[in-house]
Amino acid sequence: MNLHGKQLIGVSTSAAGERIFRGFNPITGKALDPTFTEATPEEVDSAAHLAAEAASQLQKRGAEQRTGFLEAVADQILALGDELIERGMAETALPKARLTGERGRTMGQLRMFAGLIREGSWVEARIDTALPDREPLPRPDLRRMLVPMGPVAVFGASNFPLAFSVAGGDTASAWAAGCPVIVKAHPAHPGVSELVGRAVLAAARECNMPDGVFSMVHGASHEVGQALVSHPAIKAVGFTGSFAGGKALFDLAARRPEPIPVYAEMGSSNPLFVLPQAIAERGDRIAQGLVGSVTLGGGQFCTNPGLTVLLEGKESDAMLSRAAELFADAPACTLVHPSIKTAYDRALEEVSSIERLEVAAQASAAGPLPETDARATLLTTDAVTFLQNPRLGEEIYGPTTVAVVCQDREELLEVARSLQGHLTATIHGTDEDLETYSELVEILQGKVGRLIFNGFPTGVEVSPAMHHGGPYPATTDARATSVGTAAIQRFARPVCWQSFPSAALPLELQDENVRGIWRLVDSELTRDAV
Amino acid sequence: MNLHGKQLIGVSTSAAGERIFRGFNPITGKALDPTFTEATPEEVDSAAHLAAEAASQLQKRGAEQRTGFLEAVADQILALGDELIERGMAETALPKARLTGERGRTMGQLRMFAGLIREGSWVEARIDTALPDREPLPRPDLRRMLVPMGPVAVFGASNFPLAFSVAGGDTASAWAAGCPVIVKAHPAHPGVSELVGRAVLAAARECNMPDGVFSMVHGASHEVGQALVSHPAIKAVGFTGSFAGGKALFDLAARRPEPIPVYAEMGSSNPLFVLPQAIAERGDRIAQGLVGSVTLGGGQFCTNPGLTVLLEGKESDAMLSRAAELFADAPACTLVHPSIKTAYDRALEEVSSIERLEVAAQASAAGPLPETDARATLLTTDAVTFLQNPRLGEEIYGPTTVAVVCQDREELLEVARSLQGHLTATIHGTDEDLETYSELVEILQGKVGRLIFNGFPTGVEVSPAMHHGGPYPATTDARATSVGTAAIQRFARPVCWQSFPSAALPLELQDENVRGIWRLVDSELTRDAV
Repeated sequence: MNLHGKQLIGVSTSAAGERIFRGFNPITGKALDPTFTEATPEEVDSAAHLAAEAASQLQKRGAEQRTGFLEAVADQILALGDELIERGMAETALPKARLTGERGRTMGQLRMFAGLIREGSWVEARIDTALPDREPLPRPDLRRMLVPMGPVAVFGASNFPLAFSVAGGDTASAWAAGCPVIVKAHPAHPGVSELVGRAVLAAARECNMPDGVFSMVHGASHEVGQALVSHPAIKAVGFTGSFAGGKALFDLAARRPEPIPVYAEMGSSNPLFVLPQAIAERGDRIAQGLVGSVTLGGGQFCTNPGLTVLLEGKESDAMLSRAAELFADAPACTLVHPSIKTAYDRALEEVSSIERLEVAAQASAAGPLPETDARATLLTTDAVTFLQNPRLGEEIYGPTTVAVVCQDREELLEVARSLQGHLTATIHGTDEDLETYSELVEILQGKVGRLIFNGFPTGVEVSPAMHHGGPYPATTDARATSVGTAAIQRFARPVCWQSFPSAALPLELQDENVRGIWRLVDSELTRDAV
Repeated sequence: MNLHGKQLIGVSTSAAGERIFRGFNPITGKALDPTFTEATPEEVDSAAHLAAEAASQLQKRGAEQRTGFLEAVADQILALGDELIERGMAETALPKARLTGERGRTMGQLRMFAGLIREGSWVEARIDTALPDREPLPRPDLRRMLVPMGPVAVFGASNFPLAFSVAGGDTASAWAAGCPVIVKAHPAHPGVSELVGRAVLAAARECNMPDGVFSMVHGASHEVGQALVSHPAIKAVGFTGSFAGGKALFDLAARRPEPIPVYAEMGSSNPLFVLPQAIAERGDRIAQGLVGSVTLGGGQFCTNPGLTVLLEGKESDAMLSRAAELFADAPACTLVHPSIKTAYDRALEEVSSIERLEVAAQASAAGPLPETDARATLLTTDAVTFLQNPRLGEEIYGPTTVAVVCQDREELLEVARSLQGHLTATIHGTDEDLETYSELVEILQGKVGRLIFNGFPTGVEVSPAMHHGGPYPATTDARATSVGTAAIQRFARPVCWQSFPSAALPLELQDENVRGIWRLVDSELTRDAV
């Protein structure tokens, strides 16, 4: 497939603008062909109008057709074959196995949402039947379910060119809810984005979806995303990326004449607490797991454990020494883009200037290119220094963790209390540790979206019980998850129909329950007809 | 009970400030005793700190104790007896029967939420059991449920001194979710607020609830509410009131260092469409129902049908003539506060200056006091004028409706398309009308939270299937309802526990399912143990 570098405005292509940019190979340092043209405000406007038209079409066609579309997108992505993987490797330096796995995950997500809407209970149908004889007033027939919000803007992430990008989790969940999607492709992997975007359009054609169910715009500058989020036709935003980027979109959306929800997953430092008995029992293995988790994907996971909290003592010293050895021996991490490397270096420099913070170890292996070569780094400090320097509680995006050594239990709890919102927190301990530190569990529960016991936060399962979110500043909406089936709820809102004849209602609310979904009928969950 | 006019900071009272105000009798025009003291920033801060402490206490105690508390609050409100109703009549001019009914509704809401959390399934528990042998990677055990967000600020409404105020729906749903509540009492009924607030504290004592589960602050100026919403301990806001008030709080909350959700229900004009066959069949009865709905509660319902849309023709003329007669004969509406009357008069004056808008009828009966006496008013105009004057699509708070007469079906649909977000829309029609105007149903579904067929929007059922919300500007969060059991979801967020031993999990997620709640276990809804 020859890449054309244009916007996909529904089934049309367009490159009316003058600003161009190119993909970049983080291993060779060379710019990649072809050039991509940034979208103009007019192109964004066209895509948004098309999406608004598609929204009402889409709602009429029902869940069946959307199911087929989601599955067809998965198939079309697979049909791109090696070309997709190779372009991904060239644009991101992520290895073949990782990209192949990520492709599988992306297809899995699309199929999971297809299954969810085929089953159908996600609409949360509730029916209160009429009570015409109730005193003092009769009760009318009330039927409520979720309906799509309307066109959604999705921002592709740099660190997951497939699973959190063009046809990733945000897009799949928005389509599943019945919303057209306009993707702002991430400029770090424009070629992968175009390939996936064209696969989506092939699937849309195959399934006879309305034009505008999908559009994609390019932009290396902020203007394109801002124009998209500001557009009155857009009704919600999905974003995965930096705090600065997510917060800017959140602020912009809140200031619109009609404010809209922004689901920005902005990463966090995912504190990992290692409790005394666990260190004594298996400090060595925890050190191994920790270094593996910190350096996974070049340290570019949003669940990267960037903070490690433990008590002082000789077993902790041994664990940190082992970790230091492993950090020193860690392979070079090639980051997706030079700008990420610059930010990583700047953050390391910034925190290294803090008194009583030490660089305990740094990987010696060099990557192919200084501009993208990040060294895995172990930083150590004490609790007092941590508590006095709020910067240490914020994310350093890249392959590093700050080990905070606490004098005693109370100091460790104080560190936990000082934390802001994070995606995850992890506790390593024995069952006895867990009892002794039940207060720690309580504190952390108030700070995070996911609590992990004796594991590592990287590796986010895509399943119904997953919650990938958390209190601000990890995300802009603690109620929302961007992974798992519950992600669909972000793009739907309830509507209640009062006293409508059954035939005029959406299928899911008609008496017969032909779809056999779970409904709350007169306060009882049932799959029966009314 | 002697009213003291002070803040209720948990179990303590406080009146450290210098600004005072008094209740006002809308019938006699006299200020009521005693004086109430506005809260100082320090008092707000004390209440917020107490609430933060109570939050963690509350979570430990579990649902059982909260259930008892909610029921005890209902009992204590009833135990206030006639004093509550009399003070309510004096402060709001609402008649005895209405206030007695509203008290019953308030108690019903508290008991409904008690029942909801006793049943327990509202936490949306989801369990994905471990798959240790899965290839290429094992799946960890994942368990997710909703947990309380933390302290909630609730703003009492002027129009529902009981059901949407101190112990009203917002407060009851926040408590049910496990959140402490700080109420900003509405200055239009400070005495009723104090009575209910003290009843709440009696219930809290009786049920041994932690101090700070409830506080209440007074304020006739905006500063008190602003201080409350700005406080870092506050994690969510419930509000019912004007667009200006709700939007100001939304903006303030979005600009906080940690933005928080604001659930502001800001009213709307609730368009009512009368289709041709319905007018022909029962125009007279629709006119009666319309005038009854417009003047209910003095026209101070947020679901008041302030827009009536119909096609031109002699049957429509007859219906509007009949409505005009009924408007002329309507009883005087005594509004809760002179400021509401002033705003009503100003709005009527503003729209009356629009060319081709006519005052078709106005009630002749006078109320006891010019400062609060509102005349029910029927305004009429044509679709072109409506479309050219956006002000006509916005709420006029009070006993009035703007009848928009359209030339044909297309013009009527154009009026529908032009609407912004509303709480409700109503359609009067035959089944045949509904088919002919299926496009109208579709358009309206995108604009509102509740669609009513052959009924009137006033009278909001409190039940699981109710949705009292809607797209902006009707509310600041289209996903949320402020009435019905789903209101609890506003004050909770999901947390996922990964690989925790069953005993260390919240009761709802432990293997046994001792509470017998519905859980999604490995994608199947069940009440069984794992």
